Amino acid sequence: MRPINLTDYEALAKRRLTPLAWAFYSTGSDDEVTLRANVSAFARLRLRLHTLVDVSVSDLTTTLLKAPVSMPIGVAPTAGHCLAHPEGECATARAAGEAGTLMIAATEATRRLEDIAQAATGPLWFQLYVYRTRALAESLVRRAEEAGYRALVLTVDAPVWSRRERTLRCPDDWPADLPAANIADQSELDYPTSLTWRDLAWLRSLTALPLVLKGLLTAEDARLAVEHGVEAIAVSNHGGRQLDGAPAAIEALPEVAAAVEGRCEVYLDGGIRRGADVLKALALGARAVFVGRPVLYGLAVDGAEGARHILEILRDELALAMTLTGTPTLAAIGPNLVRPA
Amino acid sequence: MRPINLTDYEALAKRRLTPLAWAFYSTGSDDEVTLRANVSAFARLRLRLHTLVDVSVSDLTTTLLKAPVSMPIGVAPTAGHCLAHPEGECATARAAGEAGTLMIAATEATRRLEDIAQAATGPLWFQLYVYRTRALAESLVRRAEEAGYRALVLTVDAPVWSRRERTLRCPDDWPADLPAANIADQSELDYPTSLTWRDLAWLRSLTALPLVLKGLLTAEDARLAVEHGVEAIAVSNHGGRQLDGAPAAIEALPEVAAAVEGRCEVYLDGGIRRGADVLKALALGARAVFVGRPVLYGLAVDGAEGARHILEILRDELALAMTLTGTPTLAAIGPNLVRPA
Amino acid sequence: MRPINLTDYEALAKRRLTPLAWAFYSTGSDDEVTLRANVSAFARLRLRLHTLVDVSVSDLTTTLLKAPVSMPIGVAPTAGHCLAHPEGECATARAAGEAGTLMIAATEATRRLEDIAQAATGPLWFQLYVYRTRALAESLVRRAEEAGYRALVLTVDAPVWSRRERTLRCPDDWPADLPAANIADQSELDYPTSLTWRDLAWLRSLTALPLVLKGLLTAEDARLAVEHGVEAIAVSNHGGRQLDGAPAAIEALPEVAAAVEGRCEVYLDGGIRRGADVLKALALGARAVFVGRPVLYGLAVDGAEGARHILEILRDELALAMTLTGTPTLAAIGPNLVRPA
Amino acid sequence: MRPINLTDYEALAKRRLTPLAWAFYSTGSDDEVTLRANVSAFARLRLRLHTLVDVSVSDLTTTLLKAPVSMPIGVAPTAGHCLAHPEGECATARAAGEAGTLMIAATEATRRLEDIAQAATGPLWFQLYVYRTRALAESLVRRAEEAGYRALVLTVDAPVWSRRERTLRCPDDWPADLPAANIADQSELDYPTSLTWRDLAWLRSLTALPLVLKGLLTAEDARLAVEHGVEAIAVSNHGGRQLDGAPAAIEALPEVAAAVEGRCEVYLDGGIRRGADVLKALALGARAVFVGRPVLYGLAVDGAEGARHILEILRDELALAMTLTGTPTLAAIGPNLVRPA
Repeated sequence: MRPINLTDYEALAKRRLTPLAWAFYSTGSDDEVTLRANVSAFARLRLRLHTLVDVSVSDLTTTLLKAPVSMPIGVAPTAGHCLAHPEGECATARAAGEAGTLMIAATEATRRLEDIAQAATGPLWFQLYVYRTRALAESLVRRAEEAGYRALVLTVDAPVWSRRERTLRCPDDWPADLPAANIADQSELDYPTSLTWRDLAWLRSLTALPLVLKGLLTAEDARLAVEHGVEAIAVSNHGGRQLDGAPAAIEALPEVAAAVEGRCEVYLDGGIRRGADVLKALALGARAVFVGRPVLYGLAVDGAEGARHILEILRDELALAMTLTGTPTLAAIGPNLVRPA
Repeated sequence: MRPINLTDYEALAKRRLTPLAWAFYSTGSDDEVTLRANVSAFARLRLRLHTLVDVSVSDLTTTLLKAPVSMPIGVAPTAGHCLAHPEGECATARAAGEAGTLMIAATEATRRLEDIAQAATGPLWFQLYVYRTRALAESLVRRAEEAGYRALVLTVDAPVWSRRERTLRCPDDWPADLPAANIADQSELDYPTSLTWRDLAWLRSLTALPLVLKGLLTAEDARLAVEHGVEAIAVSNHGGRQLDGAPAAIEALPEVAAAVEGRCEVYLDGGIRRGADVLKALALGARAVFVGRPVLYGLAVDGAEGARHILEILRDELALAMTLTGTPTLAAIGPNLVRPA
Repeated sequence: MRPINLTDYEALAKRRLTPLAWAFYSTGSDDEVTLRANVSAFARLRLRLHTLVDVSVSDLTTTLLKAPVSMPIGVAPTAGHCLAHPEGECATARAAGEAGTLMIAATEATRRLEDIAQAATGPLWFQLYVYRTRALAESLVRRAEEAGYRALVLTVDAPVWSRRERTLRCPDDWPADLPAANIADQSELDYPTSLTWRDLAWLRSLTALPLVLKGLLTAEDARLAVEHGVEAIAVSNHGGRQLDGAPAAIEALPEVAAAVEGRCEVYLDGGIRRGADVLKALALGARAVFVGRPVLYGLAVDGAEGARHILEILRDELALAMTLTGTPTLAAIGPNLVRPA
Repeated sequence: MRPINLTDYEALAKRRLTPLAWAFYSTGSDDEVTLRANVSAFARLRLRLHTLVDVSVSDLTTTLLKAPVSMPIGVAPTAGHCLAHPEGECATARAAGEAGTLMIAATEATRRLEDIAQAATGPLWFQLYVYRTRALAESLVRRAEEAGYRALVLTVDAPVWSRRERTLRCPDDWPADLPAANIADQSELDYPTSLTWRDLAWLRSLTALPLVLKGLLTAEDARLAVEHGVEAIAVSNHGGRQLDGAPAAIEALPEVAAAVEGRCEVYLDGGIRRGADVLKALALGARAVFVGRPVLYGLAVDGAEGARHILEILRDELALAMTLTGTPTLAAIGPNLVRPA
């Protein structure tokens, strides 16, 4: 049957993907408590709808670090899109552009960042990992800048890799013909480097691109990020793939938003499966959300068209939820829209 | 086996109805979180019964906007009764009258509102949707007034239609011979109109009938409703069929009742399956409750007789619960009757 | 296998009893929410054990309205013991006496109250229902007094009978040869009478026996009971067989105990399945607990011996729990023994 | 498949162990509420990770009553290791030593305490039960002292044995050739003795070894322990094997840690299945945790090597969790690391 929501796509993708690809995409770390909490925590929030409001004009457009987008929903950085479709990240970038929104391309993409940039029609940001050799990071930043990426998204929750047991249990190896396309020496992948707040100065020295810190979950870290002048924070637990036991993204959002007090942009990723989830995140202080696994599942089912459909479904659902709650514009969305169940 | 409670009727109806009819009646929107919460939220409330009270005289009679009814339980507006039984809304109206209570006939009824009025023996209210053309609404109001309907129930939670996925997945089409009988141009059905608080004046200008707003869930909206002089508010989330993620009706009732402070009548619909549920709603501030799906299931199982039986079961259960809690009259019911589990 | 706990007995009894007897004993009213809550609410309480206390001398003896008993656990009044065993209530009374505790015989016993008294070796109380004719109540009270019953236990939560659906669904009729042995005119059984606080004076005028009110669940009613001079209150929801939605017995106990302030004895029945449950009830203010269904299941499995075994299991479990919590005497048990999970 | 976490080992061990051994190791008391709560209570806590911290140097070493250990994880005392492996406690002691940590040998070990000491390469403590004859306790203390055990761990939550129903239902008897190797007269095993706070002076008079009280769960008892000068407290409910209904270990830890105020060391055992559980316990005030059943399961699967692997898995998981939370040293771990879900 034709998929009509993100869960349909997930079920279809599970059938199409190789066991390794399914394990790699779907796994969380350890007991997957945080993976499940990301989704289930949204269900504990209720939307306090308002009626008899003029909802004839609905407007989802916004800007993300000044880049105009058609909706407050972007594509989160995820690795290995070629596991889902031969065109890999290039197809995803095209899908994002067609949906009028931006994509964050991952360092560990299976297509070269330059090729992704060439395929893209919308704005791109570059997610950066720093590995063993800083020269690699510098090279990646320069390449991203030259290829037209408009921001750096530094992932800060992976000083080491966690254990993702579904992947460990999968007998298959990563396909040899699908290397991390942006990294010449694949052994670098084994050595994420622990950066500190002080290292942000080094990163700033390399580029004038705005900086997004991805993976913050506490008020303390949010305040530090603001003090260090970052342009945006992405509240994220790495899709439940790093520290199992970390708070669900939507659980952590309120304390981060309260600490930031509007001094930088705040995003959220993790657990978004419905437009109403997006609305809850916006109500609790996010400027936008990013979506990871569902886009991959769309890609697996129907290539760029599937990924685009995922984004369009979310857009339609968000627009519907905004209309039904009497908040047809993003400016109308506020914290009183949400209450605990 | 002979059905003895509302759940029995639901199981029987599922077997009797066509797949389309079952999908149409039973569906909620999206993940049906609100649909389930409507029912389950009642189970989290306990009834603090009082003993050694004189319960020899039990009285369930009340008035709803001055219309005397035999009990604080009416028939909620629902569409398409002819899917359940050939006599459709006419049978339901007869059932309500036999049970001594009132029915709210829906704009999207499959029998003409004049025919329903003719079949009815009890008081009728008319549920109004405003579609693309206001002339249609004006015509419906005039017809309802002439046919003897005593109040207008304006549904305010449907500026657009939500997605009800069980219906979308049902391969069958709506039977061509069962049109919305009150609407000449069926294409109107696709275009509910977004009304605003200001439009209430237009509606008032059409008729002197009292006005009920159905679909409010917050204190803010309740205060606005009172300020706009409405005669009653029906706390409702459209049976979990509009915004998925909206609060359960019984969750929203306390804040609405507190905001209204007795300045208009307050009703509730959504999730009522037992007389004890009715009692909990009355204790938390509702003057009456309205019942939707269960009446349709009664209609499907046994026509007017089944719908009447549903209402009688609820009446008996409510009377029993009132006796067992030591509140044999509606006046005796107060907030101290309820506590969280 | 030899049963080692109360749950084992329940499973065995289910196999031995006729479908009608099982339905009659095991049913609650309506959706059985309160029936289940009676048991599950105990699991939400934790016991704060104290160590390195002298527990060499353990003492479970107490008095119930001055009657000495070997433990704070008695037999709750339940109807129809002959459904479980030919000797019926006579066997139960013998079991209670052998366990050194008291039994509350029910008005609706299937053995005559005089026969029960003759079989008993321990103290007996008489549970009283008042039906249509007060003369019947007067006769029952006189007979109980003459037969040596030491207290009246007036059930106050049954002004009418609730609906117990498992019984309604059972195709079998109550065996014609098992009438309520204490009532000449069986049609009386259909008409429980609604008593009021004022009627207690009438009851007092019939007898000097101490009076226990069974079925109170609120602080308000507890205060009224004390003001009316009753000797004891049994916190009870009739084993989940009257008002479905009533609080679990252990949920209601704290407010009743706080309102009574020691001015009369307080008991609890409903949901006791383990000695630790007894201890939790004592910690929250009960002087003793009464056990209904488990005793019937013991009776069904092994007659008087089975009923006695049930009481001995509970005694052993309670003694063990008291030792392990460092409260080897009833006097040592206090509210700080319990905390929420 | 090669086991990669503690749950894998449990599943493998269940297949390898005799029914009696499985029942004996896995059982809790009564309904096993506390057994399950020990594990599930950890899942209700979230870890508030901190990012961009220097985690390049990770240090898990600590001391337990001055004994240096490689990590804050030791082997809890459990009985009957020869049920799992012929080498029994000697293999476990070797595993602990190889993992660089300490083992608490149990009085009811199936290998002589002197043999365990000879096999051990790491520090040992001796868990003491006092039975019917105090002479036996005195002899055990002397032997432990002479064999080089460095502390006494007095179990205080077993003045009597509880009922462990899975063991009771197991048809097999304890193997006659596996006696409690440290006790000449096996009938002593049936008579644990109730000690009191006053008896600690007697125990102190026998030895200069530091004293750990194992089985405290409340602030009151913790304060008494400090006043009596004990060197350490182990928050424990005996692995859910004594009082069913006792708080989960991690539920009880905060009140104990708050009462102790650093005046003695505080440990925890019960429910540890992941490194993140260890981290939660450390954050809430434990200096170290001890692990019981998982070590036995490792022993059952692969002897000393399996037990060592269990400890190494926990070490790796703890190190990973410390790195991912930005607390690479034990000193960095504090209460703000944890929040409720």
